[in-house]
Order: sequence, then C-alpha cells, then structure tokens
Amino acid sequence: MTTVNAFAATEPGGPLTPFTYELGPIGDQDVDIDVQHCGVCHSDLSMLGNDWGFTQYPFVPGHEVAGVVAATGDQVTHVEVGDRVGLGWHAGYCMTCDQCLGGHHNTCAGASGTIVGRHGGFADRVRAQAAAVVKLPDDLDARSAGPLLCGGITVFNPLVQTGLSPTARVGVIGIGGLGHMALKFMNAWGCEVTAFTSSDSKRQEALDLGAHDTINSRDPEAIAAAAGRFDLILSTVNVKLDWNGYLGTLRPRGRLHLVGAVTEPLDLQVFPMLMGQLSVSSSPTGSPATIATMLDFAARHAIAPQTEHFPMNQVNEAMAHLEAGKARYRIVLDRD
Amino acid sequence: MTTVNAFAATEPGGPLTPFTYELGPIGDQDVDIDVQHCGVCHSDLSMLGNDWGFTQYPFVPGHEVAGVVAATGDQVTHVEVGDRVGLGWHAGYCMTCDQCLGGHHNTCAGASGTIVGRHGGFADRVRAQAAAVVKLPDDLDARSAGPLLCGGITVFNPLVQTGLSPTARVGVIGIGGLGHMALKFMNAWGCEVTAFTSSDSKRQEALDLGAHDTINSRDPEAIAAAAGRFDLILSTVNVKLDWNGYLGTLRPRGRLHLVGAVTEPLDLQVFPMLMGQLSVSSSPTGSPATIATMLDFAARHAIAPQTEHFPMNQVNEAMAHLEAGKARYRIVLDRD
Repeated sequence: MTTVNAFAATEPGGPLTPFTYELGPIGDQDVDIDVQHCGVCHSDLSMLGNDWGFTQYPFVPGHEVAGVVAATGDQVTHVEVGDRVGLGWHAGYCMTCDQCLGGHHNTCAGASGTIVGRHGGFADRVRAQAAAVVKLPDDLDARSAGPLLCGGITVFNPLVQTGLSPTARVGVIGIGGLGHMALKFMNAWGCEVTAFTSSDSKRQEALDLGAHDTINSRDPEAIAAAAGRFDLILSTVNVKLDWNGYLGTLRPRGRLHLVGAVTEPLDLQVFPMLMGQLSVSSSPTGSPATIATMLDFAARHAIAPQTEHFPMNQVNEAMAHLEAGKARYRIVLDRD
Repeated sequence: MTTVNAFAATEPGGPLTPFTYELGPIGDQDVDIDVQHCGVCHSDLSMLGNDWGFTQYPFVPGHEVAGVVAATGDQVTHVEVGDRVGLGWHAGYCMTCDQCLGGHHNTCAGASGTIVGRHGGFADRVRAQAAAVVKLPDDLDARSAGPLLCGGITVFNPLVQTGLSPTARVGVIGIGGLGHMALKFMNAWGCEVTAFTSSDSKRQEALDLGAHDTINSRDPEAIAAAAGRFDLILSTVNVKLDWNGYLGTLRPRGRLHLVGAVTEPLDLQVFPMLMGQLSVSSSPTGSPATIATMLDFAARHAIAPQTEHFPMNQVNEAMAHLEAGKARYRIVLDRD
C-alpha cells in the first residue's frame, strides 16, 4: 500500500486542502508516477466547480503531469522505474474497441479521465494505465512539459488529424493558454501564421510567439479584409463569435476547427460553406501516439509553453490566478 | 453566325416560350454543342423564379446537357466535331487562379454558370468553354447522362473530396433526384449504404437503388438507435433537419456533409462534435477532372440516373412535374 498526499476539494468550488488516500496493489498494466510538476488547466477549474455535472468528491484535480516512474505493473514494458514520463487528460483506455485498435484512443468511449472518478496529479503520486503514460524525450524540459500533455496536444492534434500542409495559411483565434502553443506549433510546422487578438497588448506578444501577422478580432472591417485568406482557422476560445464572419476568411476548401467547448450552438450559414466547399470541425485531446509525436516535435523545435510557476502547496492561489484570467500563459505547480 | 432555337422566360416564373438568339463567331477556346438531351434540375426552377436574385431575362434554363460537338475553336484539342460530350453547371473558368491551376475549377471565383448570364441547354445548341466540356465514355447512354452532369457530380464530388473509404458505413438523407444517384454511387464505391427515408413507399425503392438498409427519418427512436454508426452522412435535402440528432449517428471522426442549400442556419452543438472529433462540411458541383472521373466510374459500374423523359417542346409540363415533386427521380428533355 502506498499513501498518496494530494490536494482535494470536498464540495463544488471548495478550496483544495491536504488529502491522503491509499493506492491499492498495482495492477499488471499500471504505472505509478512520482509527480514533479503538474500544469493547471481550465478544465481543472470546470471540474472543481462540477460545471459538467460528473465531478466526484473528494476531488483531486491535475491532468498535466510531468514526473518519474515510481513503480510499474508486471506487464508494463515501455517504461521503467526512473523514466521521465507525462500523463494528460486520459488515464486509461478500453484498448480493444475499434477506436483504440485503430490508434484513436482519444475517441474511445470507454476512456477514463485522469480526474474523472479518479484522483489526479495535484499530489505526490498518480496512477495510470501504461498506454496513457508517455515517455518524455531527453531534450524536453520537465518543468514546462506538463501543459503540453493537455493544452498542447489539444492544439497539436488538429494539425495531424487534418493533414495540415506546411504551405497552408493558418489563423489562431484566442491567444491564451492553448492559442499561444498553437502559434508556436504552427510556426514550426512551416505555416504562415496569423493571430486573431482582441487586445492590442497581445499583438507584439503574438508576433514574438510565432505569428507572422495579427488581425484585431474586434474589428469587423479587418476580418472582412481577410476574405478568402486562410486554409485553416483554429479557434481556442469557448465563447460565441461571429462564426460566419470567420468562414468568410477561409479559402476554398478551408476549415474552421474548434477546440474550445463553446456552449452556444454554432449558427452556420450553409450557402457560403457549399460554395467554398468548407468544413467546420472539432476535436478533443489526442491519442497516446499523437502525444508522443507532439513531444518529439516539441523537443526537436525547442517548443515549450510559456509558464508561471507556483509551489504545489499554493495550489489555491494558482487556481485563483487562472480563474482571474491572469495566467501568461500556462500555470505549473512544482513539488518542493 | 449561328441561330439558336431555345426556350426562354422573359420574366420571373414566366412560361418558357420559343426564343431565338445568334451565337457570335466562335472563340478560340469555345465548343458549340448540338444538344440532344438536357436534364431538368431544381436549380433551373430556382433560377427561373429568380430565387437567388441574379437571373437575367430572357432566361434560357438547362445545365445538364448531353450532346454532340458541332463546332470547336482553333485552340480546342481535347474534343472534335462529332464527339459525344456533356456540360454541367459551369460553362467556363478563369483557368489561372490558384483553384483552377490546382484542379479545383469548381471553386474558381471567376467561374461562369451555364445559365448565369448565359443561355443554357433548353435549346438546340449551347456554347461553352472547352475546359467545361467533358467527353462521354463510349459505354455511357447519352439519354440518361445529362443528370450526371449536375445532380450526379454534386453527390459524387464529396466521395472524392472526403477521401471516402469503401470500408465506410454511409447514410444518405433525402432519396430524390440527388439522393437516388448517391445510393448507386456509394453502393458501387463498396460502402455499406443506409437510406434515411421519410416515406414507407420509398423504402423498397431505396433498397432497389443500392441501399443495404433504411431508417425512417421521421422516427426519432430509429435515429437514436443508430448512434455511433456512420462514417459519413450525405444530406441532399434543402430543409432544416435535426442536425444534432444526425451528428449523434456518426462514429468518432465521422462527417455530416451537406449538398442541399439549406437556408436556415445549422444549429450545431459543439460539445458532441468535439468529443467525437466530428466534421460538418458542404460542397457545390465538381471540377471537370472529377466529372470525368465520375463518368468513367458510372460507365464501368453501369450507373445511370432513373429518368423520366419529356420532348423538349413540352418543357413547361416538365418543369411543372418537377415543381410538383413528382419526378421519379430525374427529368430529361429529349430533342425529337
């Protein structure tokens, strides 16, 4: 038996307080990770508040884990004790449905979330199924690796899934936790990258992050002037925008892809989509294979999220900082 | 100078009456077609009524032409006088934009419609740019070829554009002029084909046309029971449906593709699209290369639209038959 020292909330929105629980005997396919760093993602806040209605309390957030393998089950072969590894939104998969067998574990209906009915990474240790535990490349800094495991893969996955060409002209809506990583990835991908920003203060930051150009997203004339320009627009925001206006900035056969879980329905006009042969699509996190591909790409291109760090025992301050919209751009909790 | 004997309307919705006009000297890249058969498409009705606001009168409908080359310009090399050819929605392209040069003439912003500011195929002769004139394969029956050139390519183009696999499970919404050809194409494509029909009377017809299964589209329980089943759903209707209900019938990474110009905006829920990594897309007619591919495929698989025939001088009766929703499934005007 292993005692885990974690931070948990006992009620919706409640503060995170020290909480211990016992890990049972390790399963054949399990990996126990000694957490060193854990990113703080907006979905940790959503789950803390039970916004989606399936949070179980006591609730231990944390699903952007960078750590070291502490123990492995008998059948685990791809990592060993001492390896540097990461863990993201999913902590396990059914492994035998058509999605898993096809390499699309991220759309497995039986996948289990790291913080859904399980205790997450705001702790000194976390357990996950081997398939969900990805080795970190040697060149990747563990200190800033955590946010890649959820936020990063969410914006990287569409580049792979849509078969994005490096010759493409792409736009990113929302230059925040996800969007700033999208700019870096798309720049390294070889694309011409434009950032849609609502604040002048972020204009220079977007250019520094990898954008080649910026468009003020609150200026309808600027958006109209970009008619027919983009092959792909990636939206990372979770509020309703003028989607039809953005469709107008797509080239023929272009795509608007959303990774922000907007609650208001999309109100898409069909005729422009038909004439331009356009697509509108969305996606969640990525599969383990795509996560490994992303980590390799990030290491080769020296791509890291821009992070702010809090010691893990200041977890409530970190969550408040995120909730206040102050994160620039991604928060990581460090143990010790 | 060549005198063309056509049928034209002089005002919105007006009857089609005999109308003659002169073709000027043939251009270097022009092809004159001796019309033998011309399909009647719903967009002929829409244009006749000026539903889209850009009809010019006198208006000669007809953009599903099967005929024989009567004359060619000096620079025309791919067809010669006497060749059997077809002409669809587009009668010309700019030929030098990125879309044309990339083989995507159907999304050329400078493309000209056969019945948009030009006189169409309800006539003994029609002129078009060489690139828009496609040779008919020897094995293809000219009598039923016309509807392939607009209705057919509209449902065939998505199979090519989406890279549809023969292993896919597909659904077709709306078993009419377009949908009945979609069933035939998808069956020959190797897919498992399901027809969504609103009428019991069309159930057996859908099976005869190539569907392997049918679902009553007015039965919400039947649609709910098809959850997670389809890789692609092709909607050929132009009325608002329960789009989110249909999204629920898609497998992960599935696609809802619309070729019907619905005027009401799509009201798509993002969360199911995100979780399932789904796409919603649309497309117009196809490019000349895709039309040629379709004609070859149709000839190899003996695919022909199911047609009803009217002599061309009964064009008003034919239009009324279509407008009354009585066409089973596609109307063709025959010259003598």
